[in-house]
Amino acid sequence: MSKPKGFEKPTGVRDYVPYAVAKLRSIEHNVLACMSRWGYEQIMTPTMEYYDTVGVASSTSDQKLFKLLNNRGTTLVLRSDMTAPIARVVSSLMKEEPLPLRLSYHANVFRAIEEEAGREAEFFQTGVELVGDDSPEADAEVVALAIESLQAAGVTSFKIAMGHVGFLNGLFEEVLAGRSSEQESLKKGLLSRDYVGFRSQIVELGLPQAQENELDGILRLRGGKEICDQALDLTGHPLARASISHLCKVWEVLEAYGVSEHVLIDLTMIGDFSYYTGMTFEGYASELGFPVCSGGRYDNLLQQFGRNVPATGFALKTNRILDGVHGLKEQVKLPVLVQYSAGERKQGLNKAAALRAEGTTVVTRLLSENEEANRFDQDMSKYEQILTFESSSR
Amino acid sequence: MSKPKGFEKPTGVRDYVPYAVAKLRSIEHNVLACMSRWGYEQIMTPTMEYYDTVGVASSTSDQKLFKLLNNRGTTLVLRSDMTAPIARVVSSLMKEEPLPLRLSYHANVFRAIEEEAGREAEFFQTGVELVGDDSPEADAEVVALAIESLQAAGVTSFKIAMGHVGFLNGLFEEVLAGRSSEQESLKKGLLSRDYVGFRSQIVELGLPQAQENELDGILRLRGGKEICDQALDLTGHPLARASISHLCKVWEVLEAYGVSEHVLIDLTMIGDFSYYTGMTFEGYASELGFPVCSGGRYDNLLQQFGRNVPATGFALKTNRILDGVHGLKEQVKLPVLVQYSAGERKQGLNKAAALRAEGTTVVTRLLSENEEANRFDQDMSKYEQILTFESSSR
Repeated sequence: MSKPKGFEKPTGVRDYVPYAVAKLRSIEHNVLACMSRWGYEQIMTPTMEYYDTVGVASSTSDQKLFKLLNNRGTTLVLRSDMTAPIARVVSSLMKEEPLPLRLSYHANVFRAIEEEAGREAEFFQTGVELVGDDSPEADAEVVALAIESLQAAGVTSFKIAMGHVGFLNGLFEEVLAGRSSEQESLKKGLLSRDYVGFRSQIVELGLPQAQENELDGILRLRGGKEICDQALDLTGHPLARASISHLCKVWEVLEAYGVSEHVLIDLTMIGDFSYYTGMTFEGYASELGFPVCSGGRYDNLLQQFGRNVPATGFALKTNRILDGVHGLKEQVKLPVLVQYSAGERKQGLNKAAALRAEGTTVVTRLLSENEEANRFDQDMSKYEQILTFESSSR
Repeated sequence: MSKPKGFEKPTGVRDYVPYAVAKLRSIEHNVLACMSRWGYEQIMTPTMEYYDTVGVASSTSDQKLFKLLNNRGTTLVLRSDMTAPIARVVSSLMKEEPLPLRLSYHANVFRAIEEEAGREAEFFQTGVELVGDDSPEADAEVVALAIESLQAAGVTSFKIAMGHVGFLNGLFEEVLAGRSSEQESLKKGLLSRDYVGFRSQIVELGLPQAQENELDGILRLRGGKEICDQALDLTGHPLARASISHLCKVWEVLEAYGVSEHVLIDLTMIGDFSYYTGMTFEGYASELGFPVCSGGRYDNLLQQFGRNVPATGFALKTNRILDGVHGLKEQVKLPVLVQYSAGERKQGLNKAAALRAEGTTVVTRLLSENEEANRFDQDMSKYEQILTFESSSR
């Protein structure tokens, strides 16, 4: 293993030059302002957390966690999401705050990259958690806010796919009661969207035709509100039916928000976090080939931190939006250059101060002794204006 | 070693609840906007860097660096400052950019805490680097910008102490030529401001009286511009005299900026970073017992990354300002509550959307079926206004 060269940085992390920072900051500002208008207040948590608490609760697989030891020999992790740290804060520092709590964040999170993929090891998420409300109203609120947040971030064309982990859990329990390894295997197929593999797994199970059809029918459960009725026809399992009933109510609220045109029901969807217990959703931008947000309900996470309350939320995948969205206006504001000879320094700097007080961007420079300002080869394209202060006696 | 409890977080790191985040964000925004008006553009770098490059160059002592291994077994560090990472970026991604470069940042940095002190292991810095200009003009620019940045952060009363590492290096070389361990020991005394210890060390050296007086005289070199003349009387060493001459020119420019009233010359000052090569400074707020900013010139750092150019800069100690400054106005804007019965949901949500479009913060809630809105015990102190939508037939 060769030593890294002086100018190298680790694999999977990136530098942001001024243009990219301006774009990222603009997304961050617009999305947080949107969330603030919905009553969500910002929270910040440390980069490092205990492995045994937030690390274990985070639902990021162990080998994807960045681990380190503190001075006392305790294992720490770099946070891999913000949901678990916020659950910790809601259960400690904010445990007396009345519910529901509406919290927002913009934060960098860390996941050790997979060997094959060009994935980032450090990336930004901008999201919310709505804590203490288990109603369809609350689930619809976070979906509607996700839609408005994507729009605030400059994503113009997208769809939200919405599902419910209870539907698949109920259906699988009905058809494959007690066969948990087969259930897990089928769920993995759905998670990776390997529908061909899913079908051949079903056939291999050698189930009666009716049950095989029931499992196969899952793959058709993607579309509009009518999917809820089709799903109810497919299963009699109480958990599956209750889940569909909940989704129907969420849809109804989304219609009242006037945003259901952006939403699809997708009952094949498995949330990518193991702590989800109810409704889950993902956002897909038409110009991008991967999800730009994901969220869902996690009613059992907070009790791990000592406050047994339901919660729902989502996070925008801010880096993907940053890289994919070209709709944001460039705000390249060229600076004014104030240059002065040593004798006119005070006048030059006074002018610079006056312009800055008006909000103008100003850079200053001292003319060197032999330099004739009017012949100096300044690149005019870099400046809005050049102001020169020199004594006439020069 | 007991396992951490569920709600615990690691020692030395903190959570920021909404009120603190609003205050921190306000400082961040105001200071970055100030830096932007001076032509400094924001840059962002990764949290993790290679130990062998940025870690070694960072001048944070080895045992204070947080280290971890990546998947390939290479040692990484959590950045302990932003100066070394920016030097790396200026030498790689931005190596074609014309000089001078004016860059700003707001970032969290990491240092393993000392056992005794209640110091923070993760904290924020807001700062600038001015790369490619070794003139007194450049040093004065960053000092003047530090002053305006502190004012933008809400620090109303402060002093900047300004020194030069070349003065002490030259003077020590003159009096204690070749006795580097004694030189180091005296510098340590000055760094920790242990002036009693410094005096007794001098006596122990058993120097001729004239030289003892010369070293002892250092401690009196704190004050206004007149200190420069006193320092020139004290030493004939070329490096020491050149350093004083440079400081005089910086002072002259600061007078032209109209900010010299905030500045003291302090030639006893040793910058707390080993990479400083010239002028160094620290800012002290009168209401706080510790520095609120520090900076200086580091002309040899960038060559370690392959671009041999001079640079100068500073960082505000943003957390200390956050904790110490009470001058920032609280901007507590209470939300409007829109509550509705199920039948009036659409009207309620429409009203909420209209108010949000005007920039008003709105939270919404569904009235439960048996709830009579006008008798509902809402805490009026939490809301700017409560709007209720329910059908008259209820």
